[in-house]
Amino acid sequence: MVSVAIVGAAGYAGAELTRLVLGHPLMELAMVTSSADAGRRVSQLYPALAGCDLVYVPHDAARVSQVAQVAFLAVPHTAAMAIAPGLLEAGLTVIDASADFRLRDPGVFSAWYGTEHACPDLLCDAVYGLPELWRDAIPKARLVACPGCYPTATLLAAAPAIEAGIVTSGHVIVDAKSGVSGAGRTPTSGTHFVAAAESVTAYKVGAHRHTPEIAQGLEDLGLTDVRVTFSPHLVPMSRGLLSTVYLDIVAGMPVEDAHAVYAEYYADELFVTVHPPGVMPSTSEVRGSNRAHIGVTVDGAGTLVVSAAIDNLVKGTAGQAIQCANLALGYEETTGLDRPAPVF
Amino acid sequence: MVSVAIVGAAGYAGAELTRLVLGHPLMELAMVTSSADAGRRVSQLYPALAGCDLVYVPHDAARVSQVAQVAFLAVPHTAAMAIAPGLLEAGLTVIDASADFRLRDPGVFSAWYGTEHACPDLLCDAVYGLPELWRDAIPKARLVACPGCYPTATLLAAAPAIEAGIVTSGHVIVDAKSGVSGAGRTPTSGTHFVAAAESVTAYKVGAHRHTPEIAQGLEDLGLTDVRVTFSPHLVPMSRGLLSTVYLDIVAGMPVEDAHAVYAEYYADELFVTVHPPGVMPSTSEVRGSNRAHIGVTVDGAGTLVVSAAIDNLVKGTAGQAIQCANLALGYEETTGLDRPAPVF
Amino acid sequence: MVSVAIVGAAGYAGAELTRLVLGHPLMELAMVTSSADAGRRVSQLYPALAGCDLVYVPHDAARVSQVAQVAFLAVPHTAAMAIAPGLLEAGLTVIDASADFRLRDPGVFSAWYGTEHACPDLLCDAVYGLPELWRDAIPKARLVACPGCYPTATLLAAAPAIEAGIVTSGHVIVDAKSGVSGAGRTPTSGTHFVAAAESVTAYKVGAHRHTPEIAQGLEDLGLTDVRVTFSPHLVPMSRGLLSTVYLDIVAGMPVEDAHAVYAEYYADELFVTVHPPGVMPSTSEVRGSNRAHIGVTVDGAGTLVVSAAIDNLVKGTAGQAIQCANLALGYEETTGLDRPAPVF
Amino acid sequence: MVSVAIVGAAGYAGAELTRLVLGHPLMELAMVTSSADAGRRVSQLYPALAGCDLVYVPHDAARVSQVAQVAFLAVPHTAAMAIAPGLLEAGLTVIDASADFRLRDPGVFSAWYGTEHACPDLLCDAVYGLPELWRDAIPKARLVACPGCYPTATLLAAAPAIEAGIVTSGHVIVDAKSGVSGAGRTPTSGTHFVAAAESVTAYKVGAHRHTPEIAQGLEDLGLTDVRVTFSPHLVPMSRGLLSTVYLDIVAGMPVEDAHAVYAEYYADELFVTVHPPGVMPSTSEVRGSNRAHIGVTVDGAGTLVVSAAIDNLVKGTAGQAIQCANLALGYEETTGLDRPAPVF
Repeated sequence: MVSVAIVGAAGYAGAELTRLVLGHPLMELAMVTSSADAGRRVSQLYPALAGCDLVYVPHDAARVSQVAQVAFLAVPHTAAMAIAPGLLEAGLTVIDASADFRLRDPGVFSAWYGTEHACPDLLCDAVYGLPELWRDAIPKARLVACPGCYPTATLLAAAPAIEAGIVTSGHVIVDAKSGVSGAGRTPTSGTHFVAAAESVTAYKVGAHRHTPEIAQGLEDLGLTDVRVTFSPHLVPMSRGLLSTVYLDIVAGMPVEDAHAVYAEYYADELFVTVHPPGVMPSTSEVRGSNRAHIGVTVDGAGTLVVSAAIDNLVKGTAGQAIQCANLALGYEETTGLDRPAPVF
Repeated sequence: MVSVAIVGAAGYAGAELTRLVLGHPLMELAMVTSSADAGRRVSQLYPALAGCDLVYVPHDAARVSQVAQVAFLAVPHTAAMAIAPGLLEAGLTVIDASADFRLRDPGVFSAWYGTEHACPDLLCDAVYGLPELWRDAIPKARLVACPGCYPTATLLAAAPAIEAGIVTSGHVIVDAKSGVSGAGRTPTSGTHFVAAAESVTAYKVGAHRHTPEIAQGLEDLGLTDVRVTFSPHLVPMSRGLLSTVYLDIVAGMPVEDAHAVYAEYYADELFVTVHPPGVMPSTSEVRGSNRAHIGVTVDGAGTLVVSAAIDNLVKGTAGQAIQCANLALGYEETTGLDRPAPVF
Repeated sequence: MVSVAIVGAAGYAGAELTRLVLGHPLMELAMVTSSADAGRRVSQLYPALAGCDLVYVPHDAARVSQVAQVAFLAVPHTAAMAIAPGLLEAGLTVIDASADFRLRDPGVFSAWYGTEHACPDLLCDAVYGLPELWRDAIPKARLVACPGCYPTATLLAAAPAIEAGIVTSGHVIVDAKSGVSGAGRTPTSGTHFVAAAESVTAYKVGAHRHTPEIAQGLEDLGLTDVRVTFSPHLVPMSRGLLSTVYLDIVAGMPVEDAHAVYAEYYADELFVTVHPPGVMPSTSEVRGSNRAHIGVTVDGAGTLVVSAAIDNLVKGTAGQAIQCANLALGYEETTGLDRPAPVF
Repeated sequence: MVSVAIVGAAGYAGAELTRLVLGHPLMELAMVTSSADAGRRVSQLYPALAGCDLVYVPHDAARVSQVAQVAFLAVPHTAAMAIAPGLLEAGLTVIDASADFRLRDPGVFSAWYGTEHACPDLLCDAVYGLPELWRDAIPKARLVACPGCYPTATLLAAAPAIEAGIVTSGHVIVDAKSGVSGAGRTPTSGTHFVAAAESVTAYKVGAHRHTPEIAQGLEDLGLTDVRVTFSPHLVPMSRGLLSTVYLDIVAGMPVEDAHAVYAEYYADELFVTVHPPGVMPSTSEVRGSNRAHIGVTVDGAGTLVVSAAIDNLVKGTAGQAIQCANLALGYEETTGLDRPAPVF
């Protein structure tokens, strides 16, 4: 049993973390922090968590350190790098769901986030928490940088082909579709129901901050001369993320062979399902769960088209954070994530 | 540990039962039956249940009896009354999610369902499985008739006021709103996305088969001269059911007093939350969970307006069936239902 | 040809007015005002109105009077009563879509809107603009108060029965369901896609400001001892409003007779359709159009249940304003509203 | 004034054609045919078309020829090629919304549609009806093959760059997203609200029948060595289609230059809007209208990303058919399509 604090607990990612920690048999939720919602009860802000009478308190590193052994950070980017060092010094394990420790190169970070990194030394200590691709480092980690939602789905979709050496070009086209919760809890003109319903739209094409994270991941997988074309789209659903990835592969490879690469790669992964050749996943299959479902095909132009579906708030954020914490703490990796989610 | 069969497992209610049994620590899923989908794997029909490699088989009472101690029936009405007797004779505990054993009066059944009841003798043995209102009989039950989704929400909304004796008229107006999954898995012109989206509509006003079940429940709660006006509506969401109930109450009662009746009535119920006076629940609060959330107000006309939100497939069907099975089997009532659902 | 200004043109009602005026063969759009969006082009804020290069300007009564003969007010309540007098003095016809001139009793206005009425003398001059019920006064009007969206649907649903003298109680229960655009363009936690999707919820039960307007209308129709129980609900769709109204009627009246009352009442109305007995309308039928579709039934409890569907932004706001302007200007009532809307 | 018949009028495309013909000032709707819904009134099947008392009749070439000068075909593919010859012989102008006359090469047709073409001779007579790209031939046409919804958006997105000679590779990647109405009116497991809501999924990747039509169009625009990777996706909305197209262009071209190519190309097109550089369209902007809205950007990898939004049933089907008919009949091209659609 480990005592847990969630920092920035009132946003969507924080709320899903709260939900998962409350249902985790080996975690005890000791503290939830929020600057904007301090003083409110969890069950007041999220009636789905009825029965949780914890009250949001402002973040205070000392108080967090007193009550918790593990801290999940669900704060906005640039806030996490201000908070993590203190918690690490106090001996906590830090599982960061923000973007602050994902990019190893502080220059890339400052180029995309518009500010210098506050603690570049920690970047080499941070472990990128995508267990299916880089599981080994996580058990030793004290600071885990959980991947972004788009990189999670995209790298899961690209990894088997790259590692199998069948990808022939470093130019990877990623056309991804996300539900509206990916935009966060703050109401904006773009997240208004009327704006988002009956609408699909591309946004931040070529300018989304997950682009360099995807590129770094592709390089880590062994792809060379990496160039990423990344077009995120907003679709009218609350949850769910689908990343459709286009890869040039060796000429003439039949879809069955490409599929076999994927099926074998993920054969032992409990959270990943590879559908039969040509069968593509839908995001509703993974709603509320920590699963990633993957479909693979090769079209008449010889392009490998891979589509990966996740719940952006679970495998894309909070669930993966729990999965990483389980590994870091030496628990069974699936603990607290093993019950099936509603069937849609 | 008990061995479980789900009869009619391929519909929405059956699939949610499958999900909940798979996640239940004291149940083992031994068999899933389906006439239409026999031969397919569960994970094929419901990819959310990836990892469940059970194959649907046609219903066969003898085979069910060999492998299971408990049978959940999720078949259409009139099918359950053909199946239940055999399973009961074979010694199984039967938890029926259909309508066949809900109405105690076989004449009322035949009037609303257009056919004679096949086993009217069993109607007195069947226990109506709404634990928060009639918990005591369930532990002794071998045949539980789980309430319909509309009656569940409506009776939870009406019970405290009726039992407190503050309701002054037997005419109860129920304006209820259901998500589209309530119409079942078979595709129809009415469940087509294009027909259901951007649309709200009343249907079967005064003619819905849950009407006599609501009336019977209101009478059981002690209301006299019961007349039910019931208007179900279809709203564009997959899950969720909201029943807004209008009750004439003693003149001049302030909302705080009415609210106190509800808060006290449900004070010890783990699955029911009564919101503060005037705060109404939304169905998204209970999506995927076995919870019922209730809001209470009294308006300027002196009418008690109570709104109850449930997930039609969980507290309205499969979750309540598990809850009843837990009671019937002597398990903790919340077993397998105790982890919080996604926050929306 | 008449020259038109829209005051408060950047909100949803204003935008639909803009759309309808641009498509009106006898109106010319001379000016659109907006305080918050001054300086932006119409087509920039509403890309659906591509080609409209008018720029929002701050409201200025003198400038409006110079360019326009008719002013539509789509400003928030309490703003219209500050603007209307000046425009009327300058000789304009004012069609007000706000709430400021709907209630004839300034005491009722101040009780519900929390402020004294700024120009109570104008209340008797204002004509309530619901043509199907009170058409005669509109042609003579210089100030038309367009009804609220809920009162429009509710009064259309109740009028025939009341005027036919078959309603036996002054207690009218109104359970209404609105799409999210009814909450306006300003983003809030309640209009966030994630909050509104997969959710239905009652709000402001007994406290919604359309309550006294409904009551006034019912009295005007001849109902006595009026008491209104009004429960608005928010449903996950952009447009559309359904009002289901419960009326006590003379005992034993068959549904065919009740239906005949409605069919006859609206026989000559071009914008109203009465469905066959027991067939209820859906809001998608009237999406984008100025139509009201009505369904009528009588249930086993002897209650008359009437359901009326409108588009809250068209027949509920902007379309009805155009309809009233057509009448006030001596145009054919359907001008600019006569082309069918998309079929869903 | 021309007399019009709609053959296959009861499907979604037929219903939108019905709507547009009813609102067209120079067309008179003489006949609507439907095999499945013969005997029903239009207003019964589509209550949005209240007031249209035409009754669907089975198709009969002789009767159509007696009453109509123009026939719109909205029948399934392979049905149109059985119907068109007779109508042409009888002297009618035929505007075909099906796929039967889009592909000029009968071999390509039979390869993708699994049957020989019934009247290959007519393929050279048929004019491909995408006015913005190939307007000149339409006025002389007696048989217009209206493009598919995906090809319409995709070719509009690709044409300016190809014709400007800046595209450097024949491999075009098209990632498109369609609302559910694209799947037609027949209820299926995939169009069930519960299946489509909260879900995005790729389907028929590399196997969709619009693929050869896109390829033919790209070749007609002058692209050489054409290879099309086409991934259609289903998104949870009723209407709308977004095609995001990835094109390799000459190295180093700034986005402003690429944008200028598009702005100039469509400068005089009344139905096409090119947004400012980097501003991407959403489908809700064009809901219910015959418009196409286009956004253009060039990303860090040097890829030209163009996103085109249309309403799949209007510019993607029925609206474009009217536009083509206007041209074929010598009417103003925008007749009946010129009023703005609802703003969302």
